[in-house]
Amino acid sequence: MVRRLPREARRAQLVEVGIRLSRRLPFEAIGAAEIAAAAGVSKALVFHYFPTTEELHAAIARHEAARLLADLETDPALPHDQRLRIGLESFITHIERSPASYRSMARGAASSAVLREVYEDARQGVCTMILRALGVAADPPAGVVLLLRGWIAMVEEMTLLWLDEASVPRETLVTLLHHAGLTNLPAALETEAAGR
Amino acid sequence: MVRRLPREARRAQLVEVGIRLSRRLPFEAIGAAEIAAAAGVSKALVFHYFPTTEELHAAIARHEAARLLADLETDPALPHDQRLRIGLESFITHIERSPASYRSMARGAASSAVLREVYEDARQGVCTMILRALGVAADPPAGVVLLLRGWIAMVEEMTLLWLDEASVPRETLVTLLHHAGLTNLPAALETEAAGR
Repeated sequence: MVRRLPREARRAQLVEVGIRLSRRLPFEAIGAAEIAAAAGVSKALVFHYFPTTEELHAAIARHEAARLLADLETDPALPHDQRLRIGLESFITHIERSPASYRSMARGAASSAVLREVYEDARQGVCTMILRALGVAADPPAGVVLLLRGWIAMVEEMTLLWLDEASVPRETLVTLLHHAGLTNLPAALETEAAGR
Repeated sequence: MVRRLPREARRAQLVEVGIRLSRRLPFEAIGAAEIAAAAGVSKALVFHYFPTTEELHAAIARHEAARLLADLETDPALPHDQRLRIGLESFITHIERSPASYRSMARGAASSAVLREVYEDARQGVCTMILRALGVAADPPAGVVLLLRGWIAMVEEMTLLWLDEASVPRETLVTLLHHAGLTNLPAALETEAAGR
């Protein structure tokens, strides 16, 4: 017999099971049946909490995104270049942990508008976090925001390709991306300052 | 009455009509009916050349990709930084011209495996072209290939965001991306040389 859990605890448990599944399966392969089997509960119970597959996927993706943002937090006492490197390592680790679902979100299988929204919010969150670290979150120069978004896309693309091909050591991946962030963010701040 | 055209010419005409439609519509909105109406022919004729919507989209995308690669060719006599800037401007112009279908391909609505393949081939083509310009196409260092792919993703992401928001002048977009390419490609060549 399935142990009875309070409502919030049960919901959290099902989402957690979904997150674990998303580490090896793309979202398209995660439905109520898979969650039910992995959690040892009935499909009806899963449907009770998540009436549609889209709601299920959105809940999993939102929790993953919240975890990503928490993982990316770095010690404000450290110098910028170190914070960028530590945050970058966490970002890569995050994508490494759930390549299938991250790929679904980043590269197209996410035909769901809700998932695209969650994903867009997560990217905005990462962007805001870096702008805060740079001290320009209140009134960020448009070019810097644009460049940050470009750099985030670069991190995603290179990490996903690297996971496919493992063509360079992980250290080289980190160094290339770290360098790209370090050389371009200050330049973007300058370009903006000059243009204002 | 519809004028009779030789087979290849008719096919080319239908693809051309598709390319023009793709400048304002995403692929999902382009079917045999839309091609037929825009070309002034019957739907049956469109089906004769493109039995499935997927084949139609793939043909449009392949021709667009070939045109992109042709547009990106630059004079080998020019210095690298100028070639990069000229090629970059052409790339941005290309995305600007067909934002809807480019977005479909780059960002997810492309649920078709064939379209994803065409798109992947196009990115590889851009990558090879730049490696050739750098003189390392025969045996490209893996880190440089990875970085180039990251930079291409950056160009796509920033151009698509810029088309949505127009938050900076076009010149700033070009300068930021040009700088990102110029500062990172040589660094990637060095990182690779050091690691070998």
